[in-house]
Amino acid sequence: MLAEANKLGRITLAGAGPGDPDLLTLKALRAIQSAEVILHDALVSPAILALAPPEAERIFVGKKGHGPSIRQTDINALLVQHARAGRHVLRLKGGDPLIFGRAGEEIAAAKAAGITVEIIPGVTSAQAAGAALSVSLTHRDFARRLQFVTGHDRTGALPQDFDWQALADPVATTVVYMAKSSFAPLAAMLRGKGLADDTPAVAVMDVSLPSQLVLHGTLADLPQRLREANLPGPVLVLIGRAIKS
Amino acid sequence: MLAEANKLGRITLAGAGPGDPDLLTLKALRAIQSAEVILHDALVSPAILALAPPEAERIFVGKKGHGPSIRQTDINALLVQHARAGRHVLRLKGGDPLIFGRAGEEIAAAKAAGITVEIIPGVTSAQAAGAALSVSLTHRDFARRLQFVTGHDRTGALPQDFDWQALADPVATTVVYMAKSSFAPLAAMLRGKGLADDTPAVAVMDVSLPSQLVLHGTLADLPQRLREANLPGPVLVLIGRAIKS
Repeated sequence: MLAEANKLGRITLAGAGPGDPDLLTLKALRAIQSAEVILHDALVSPAILALAPPEAERIFVGKKGHGPSIRQTDINALLVQHARAGRHVLRLKGGDPLIFGRAGEEIAAAKAAGITVEIIPGVTSAQAAGAALSVSLTHRDFARRLQFVTGHDRTGALPQDFDWQALADPVATTVVYMAKSSFAPLAAMLRGKGLADDTPAVAVMDVSLPSQLVLHGTLADLPQRLREANLPGPVLVLIGRAIKS
Repeated sequence: MLAEANKLGRITLAGAGPGDPDLLTLKALRAIQSAEVILHDALVSPAILALAPPEAERIFVGKKGHGPSIRQTDINALLVQHARAGRHVLRLKGGDPLIFGRAGEEIAAAKAAGITVEIIPGVTSAQAAGAALSVSLTHRDFARRLQFVTGHDRTGALPQDFDWQALADPVATTVVYMAKSSFAPLAAMLRGKGLADDTPAVAVMDVSLPSQLVLHGTLADLPQRLREANLPGPVLVLIGRAIKS
């Protein structure tokens, strides 16, 4: 019984940060260096995966192009299966696993299987975007609240049940993850709720990477700019007076 | 003229993360190792300051006990003065400098003086608290929005002009920084706005450090528990269904 317990592996759920390997935490770097199996998605940059030992097994569990994603239940099963085989399994996610990373379901699966999970937070892309723009996300002259939402619900569409008034607050900084396809209807809703047309809005793709791309605009004109730019990767949009401070 | 420009130093504004040195980013670690002058506050742990070269000048610019803080304008002047002397000046702040770190004023001062500022984001304590509690801050069954506020305005009191309805949203996760003295009136306001008494609320002190302390409760009973615990350090409070998921 004891021998069996000792054979049980463990799961580390770590944030890989926004993309630049230098924005990994020391703790995440050590987890990468000691992992035997790594389950990662498309938001984890190749430069970061290259830090893992050559013999570590890498399993891609992200979405490929417009094809279907691997199901969350299948990812959960893989995590548990490899840990049960006595290995150190690293679930590596772009950004912070606890911010729009679906960590909740993976933590629950590991706990249900009696497997230890350690969580390592990571710098989320909103933070790296603030650094890239050289702006405080909470500049006290312009923002009393910082809020994060995702532009996708389970079906991939803009959630309809947002607290729209909270998002239209002129003294908040709002960051919209996965904003590319949903920003136009979201901006229209916010303008309808009274958020001023000239509220600064900035779109960022590949933040912290050499391919980083920034589009400056306002709530009124950023949807058009985003359409014209037709960016190839996931986009984060920051909204509010603080981002122009 | 060129010689003079070359003599100009530079400023790095970096997040030291929540306290555990392993939660520093690699980039912040390198900045600490190459700094000639470090301006830090009380939220930067001694273990992190110990990573700087022995010859680096350390200047404490935080609040001492109940005494007055050094004025922000004096900190700005020190940053500029040391950079003008041709040195690499590191402004090191607990957490992320762009989240309730008053970075805006320091960035503006450096820019006004024509000095280059690099910003390095850091893991903010809300993220480390999620990791310590093993909960997703945005579990999709319970939270559609993640929001951060601070319990102190410029005068040290609970801000009166919050968007209270946004904070009382039952499908948001709300994190209150510097919540120790202001959580009781804040919780009362949220209950008055309709947020359920049994909404989970958790207070965390010294997150990620060996001295970490967690108080579990609800919106209704956490104020009393906080009063009884009389915690010696700054406290973060997380509120919402996701934190009990």
